[in-house]
Amino acid sequence: MAIIVQKFGGTSVGSVDRIQNVANRVTQEVENGNQVVVVVSAMGKTTDELVRLATELNEKPSKREMDMLLTTGEQITISLLTMALQQKGYDAVSYTGWQAGIETESVHGNARITDIKTANIHSQLEKGNIVVVAGFQGLSPEGNITTLGRGGSDTTAVALAAALGAQKCDIYTDVTGVYTTDPRYVKAARKLKSISYDEMLELANLGAGVLHPRAVEFAKNYHLPLEVRSSLELENGTIVEEEASMEQNLVVRGIAFEDNISRITVAGVKNSLTTLSTIFTTLANYHINVDIIIQSITSAGQNALSFSVKTEDVKQTLEVLERYADRIGYEDVEHENDLAKVSIVGSGMFSNPGVAAEMFEVLANQSIEVKMVSTSEIKVSTVVAYGDMIKAIEALHEAFELSVEETVEV
Amino acid sequence: MAIIVQKFGGTSVGSVDRIQNVANRVTQEVENGNQVVVVVSAMGKTTDELVRLATELNEKPSKREMDMLLTTGEQITISLLTMALQQKGYDAVSYTGWQAGIETESVHGNARITDIKTANIHSQLEKGNIVVVAGFQGLSPEGNITTLGRGGSDTTAVALAAALGAQKCDIYTDVTGVYTTDPRYVKAARKLKSISYDEMLELANLGAGVLHPRAVEFAKNYHLPLEVRSSLELENGTIVEEEASMEQNLVVRGIAFEDNISRITVAGVKNSLTTLSTIFTTLANYHINVDIIIQSITSAGQNALSFSVKTEDVKQTLEVLERYADRIGYEDVEHENDLAKVSIVGSGMFSNPGVAAEMFEVLANQSIEVKMVSTSEIKVSTVVAYGDMIKAIEALHEAFELSVEETVEV
Repeated sequence: MAIIVQKFGGTSVGSVDRIQNVANRVTQEVENGNQVVVVVSAMGKTTDELVRLATELNEKPSKREMDMLLTTGEQITISLLTMALQQKGYDAVSYTGWQAGIETESVHGNARITDIKTANIHSQLEKGNIVVVAGFQGLSPEGNITTLGRGGSDTTAVALAAALGAQKCDIYTDVTGVYTTDPRYVKAARKLKSISYDEMLELANLGAGVLHPRAVEFAKNYHLPLEVRSSLELENGTIVEEEASMEQNLVVRGIAFEDNISRITVAGVKNSLTTLSTIFTTLANYHINVDIIIQSITSAGQNALSFSVKTEDVKQTLEVLERYADRIGYEDVEHENDLAKVSIVGSGMFSNPGVAAEMFEVLANQSIEVKMVSTSEIKVSTVVAYGDMIKAIEALHEAFELSVEETVEV
Repeated sequence: MAIIVQKFGGTSVGSVDRIQNVANRVTQEVENGNQVVVVVSAMGKTTDELVRLATELNEKPSKREMDMLLTTGEQITISLLTMALQQKGYDAVSYTGWQAGIETESVHGNARITDIKTANIHSQLEKGNIVVVAGFQGLSPEGNITTLGRGGSDTTAVALAAALGAQKCDIYTDVTGVYTTDPRYVKAARKLKSISYDEMLELANLGAGVLHPRAVEFAKNYHLPLEVRSSLELENGTIVEEEASMEQNLVVRGIAFEDNISRITVAGVKNSLTTLSTIFTTLANYHINVDIIIQSITSAGQNALSFSVKTEDVKQTLEVLERYADRIGYEDVEHENDLAKVSIVGSGMFSNPGVAAEMFEVLANQSIEVKMVSTSEIKVSTVVAYGDMIKAIEALHEAFELSVEETVEV
């Protein structure tokens, strides 16, 4: 019998009705003849409510106690889902992270999984039980409850699937799969039948938000196929796997985008070897996330330096730059808000050097000014005015023929 | 340094304000120079809400999953209280039942504590931490989360205090101590300075409701002094200890009472050796709790049998008796509702054989008919008409001089 791991997020288990719906999806997989392990998140708004209580009692709650508090959310869901499965006449048992053998680093709030002892789960599966595991949580070597940070339940599901030797891991969410771009913005957006780990990683990192990058990394390392699919609709989702071979000829697979981007330009920077590291180390110390960085050296030996940050971080960025002005050494700082990042992603790009040029041409034809550019082996990111964002996505979606149905089936 | 264990119930931690108040009571004990372990219950209405969710998903949720669900309640409280203590600048750490080393039988819903491994708590106390432990919960040998049943947090606190060699265990509640009788009904009721374990046990079993009998038993076995006191008022509470020596001359220490009592009379019972056990085993199988039992054998070799039950159980009791009529063998069943049980408790009673007689005389003087009687070494219980209950309590309270302030201080 094959082992299938299913993961359901907070929205999918947000109410009694939703939990019953999840129970149906789970037992369906049992009826298909599989051994099923289910990983769940906390119910919808539970976490928000707990965080509210915590901040009323402590301005800056300790991370250990936040982990202790928030992990109750998944513990509630596992017991309720198990009850729903038992009500349907199926044998099921719930496990917290530590009961499931999920071991992590001694870090609170953002621990990495170090090992999974699967003996308990295997023995329950052998007894014919559905095993319902709390996502997002684990146990440190000192016996403390830890959490895996953002996207933690995805990571739990994928890590468990790898450790258990599962056939696949299904990530149930509130969308029906991975799209060529966000269908809420672009009508022509089309659901992909499959996508490679690397492409998914770029899309995930670029804010597509369907699947957490850590989970994708994990799946890639263990060659574990994922399926992103809807918890409410029955249709097939998108398979994330080693190589989406049947679509090799499609150079661009998807378009990701993100608004509320700002550009900071530091002019007249002294061209010393350490200046760059000084600036970005200082910003990192203040937890300011810098994305695209562009440096141009003038003949006079001075740098003009531009970088993009989230608009919400602009105020603090400017303050930090001013506070450390002497140490950094520059003449002037400017910033520009109301920008957006638009990126094309596709593993075929690696062997097609003309893709970036094609992208710029498409944008130029729409009179869209490209303010910043950054490239990797399988993506090209541009920063444009927010007002041009949708126009850019639509034009790129059409130019790279993303709405055309994939023709080759395996 | 002495170790003090403090226990706060659900009402005492029912809101952010209440938790802050508890934090003040805890740090006060630290400022007194003690090492402090705090045991807490789930916040006020948390449990009710979780039970509601469970019963919506499963008509009869499994006990294992109910334990998994309900133990999140205390886990929330320990983390929030620890955050409140840290906000006040104190070092504190929270422990679930399993982290605190509380081991129980493999029973769900009503497990007994089998052992407590105190190494973790001792090491945290040595580091200068306040240790906040989740009450009501433990871990079975198979690694399942268990609960201790009703009054479980009291039991956790007392068991921990015994295992840690604590100097005392303070049970904080919503009343200021143990009273001679319920002050809501009898104005003359007076708070006792101290009371013996046995007296407290009788009062607890008789429905005084301040402290769970299991916790008192535990404290008695380990000679551990308890103090029942208010979480809101600062006054001293009532000490529960080996022997309330300075009040030895007080024969009666308190009056307990319970309403909604019914009497069932089974007439013409065949006088066979097995009849009694047949009746009460059958009722026990249906979870009907029988309290006082009175049997009178007539010269004709037939029994009239009376017993008291809670009024809410009368309907089922009559149904069971009718269903098993042939097997039991009797002529008639009658029942009487609207009764109450009034009991006097005092360890001095043992050496004062006239106390029961005095009680009956007091009741007779008030024209109160005594319908049933039951005695133990340190209590006399009577069943009277509900309409006579308050009159009986007041008369007994006065006759046994319970409102007179204790004069001897140690």
